[in-house]
Amino acid sequence: MALTVVGSIAFDSVRTPFGERERMLGGSAVHFALAASFFTDVGMVGPVGDDFGAEHLAVLSAHGIVTDDIEHVAGGKTFFWRGHYDHDMNVAHTDETQLNVFAEFEPKLSRRSRESQVLFLGNIQPELQRDVRRQSSASFAALDSMNLWIETTRESLIAAIGEIECLMLNDAELRMLTEQPNLVHAARATMELGPEVVVAKRGEYGAVLFSDDGSFAIPGLLLEDVRDPTGAGDSFAGGFLGYLDAVRIAGGHDDRALRQAMAYGSVMASFNVEDFGTERVSSLTEAEIADRLSAFKRLTHFEEAPIVRSAQRPHHVPTSGPGHG
Amino acid sequence: MALTVVGSIAFDSVRTPFGERERMLGGSAVHFALAASFFTDVGMVGPVGDDFGAEHLAVLSAHGIVTDDIEHVAGGKTFFWRGHYDHDMNVAHTDETQLNVFAEFEPKLSRRSRESQVLFLGNIQPELQRDVRRQSSASFAALDSMNLWIETTRESLIAAIGEIECLMLNDAELRMLTEQPNLVHAARATMELGPEVVVAKRGEYGAVLFSDDGSFAIPGLLLEDVRDPTGAGDSFAGGFLGYLDAVRIAGGHDDRALRQAMAYGSVMASFNVEDFGTERVSSLTEAEIADRLSAFKRLTHFEEAPIVRSAQRPHHVPTSGPGHG
Repeated sequence: MALTVVGSIAFDSVRTPFGERERMLGGSAVHFALAASFFTDVGMVGPVGDDFGAEHLAVLSAHGIVTDDIEHVAGGKTFFWRGHYDHDMNVAHTDETQLNVFAEFEPKLSRRSRESQVLFLGNIQPELQRDVRRQSSASFAALDSMNLWIETTRESLIAAIGEIECLMLNDAELRMLTEQPNLVHAARATMELGPEVVVAKRGEYGAVLFSDDGSFAIPGLLLEDVRDPTGAGDSFAGGFLGYLDAVRIAGGHDDRALRQAMAYGSVMASFNVEDFGTERVSSLTEAEIADRLSAFKRLTHFEEAPIVRSAQRPHHVPTSGPGHG
Repeated sequence: MALTVVGSIAFDSVRTPFGERERMLGGSAVHFALAASFFTDVGMVGPVGDDFGAEHLAVLSAHGIVTDDIEHVAGGKTFFWRGHYDHDMNVAHTDETQLNVFAEFEPKLSRRSRESQVLFLGNIQPELQRDVRRQSSASFAALDSMNLWIETTRESLIAAIGEIECLMLNDAELRMLTEQPNLVHAARATMELGPEVVVAKRGEYGAVLFSDDGSFAIPGLLLEDVRDPTGAGDSFAGGFLGYLDAVRIAGGHDDRALRQAMAYGSVMASFNVEDFGTERVSSLTEAEIADRLSAFKRLTHFEEAPIVRSAQRPHHVPTSGPGHG
């Protein structure tokens, strides 16, 4: 049981209608690892600069995250992102990106990372993702990406997708990638590229999972306070893959576990957005997670009940409908 | 057990990327009544003109719909709508609206309609909805509306909302009505206007129900073929209220039944959009409805499972999280 994530380790400066923060600990690998740490052993791979100090490592270590493969680039600066959200918190506006140490990043996985059963390739250049995948012997590798890579490095991305077991994208990105406006068709076209599991993320509307066993759809949790959506997708992936790794589902073929993992992914994403950066997830308790999972079950549960018609007036169903138009 | 709907009875000319149809039988009352007819006894109130013939009445009668309160205006023409959908089928573009007999409509409810336990006020002018509500002794009245009435007849609409038990609106319209960007806050503000039940419709993303018992959210069914979304919201309302009427839930306080009704609403809306106008719903069978409800249950079901951590490496959860930013 071990999970490895490769992705950005960053400082994020974020402004939303509910406040702003300067240089918070962030990045896809950080959000993912914190969420996953509640479920399984997780190790991080990625570069940091001189500005990444012991106090930042301590946040990760406090959650039992293995930081041996965090590469300290002497004289370098950590990846930096500045962005803001307006009234529509579904849309992130990027104001500044400094790749810094990420520009020269050449991932080198330790034995622990190479042998992890489950691997998450956070949203970075597809060729870096492929490089990591080649070093890894994971039986279940999942990949996140974005519109930028679909537009600028499409061939590399499609090659990367052919080498993994699970693709996690926003629904709009899945449609863009496959040029299929219908989500079911888009998921099917994606599975023909290689992955046996496809997760379509839908922001506040939840997520859909597609596999050979069929499909599973969940709404988002209903939240009264959304303060900063940065990292929600990575927290979702952390809960999803963390749970799958914990129950030792390597092949992604256990429909029951995949559904439970989707629920935990939603729960972790819901905590992520309730406060800035990692503030909420890094101070979570297992009891809070369990409570929210129960709330999510209550939110979505219904019983299948048959149609009950009155005896007085039987319904006359035509064998074929009268046509119009 | 009886349900009455007042709303438009129309001819619709619709063009979508998948084809076009001229002068199909349509309108909110028609879509609603056809969907509801699979669950309970439903009667329609609304005006038609000379162009509304026996063949159109026959479609309704074949489903056992009570048409006594359909008012034939001699010399008049039936309400007409022409519209189209582009690539994004969530957005209807109106090309032409002829109110025709609807311009002078003064609803007069028969005894059967007045005494129906459940009433649906389809999307028409709020003052007409209020007029009907005053004539009705329904214990559970539901109302649909749209951005047009929120913008142009806001005070009338708010008065109408104060006189009904259940408001059914698109989520964006609920936000617009209450000026609350957060859906939970918008629903709460709506309930303060009067309704004890609020249904937020989210198009392909499903729907959310709010009541004193809490909230219930469902995704939309995943459909491979969406040919014409016209009437989907009314078919949803027909399945929702038809089921509630059939199980004799007048007060809207039975949480279990409300959830089942939401599922049936989603099922009926999913059939509605699969073909033009009323083509799919008017030729449905109860077996198809039951099959799709089962498919919907499979689509959304998950089991609550606890977090399973490995014994080797206990998780260290801080009592309060390290802060950033």
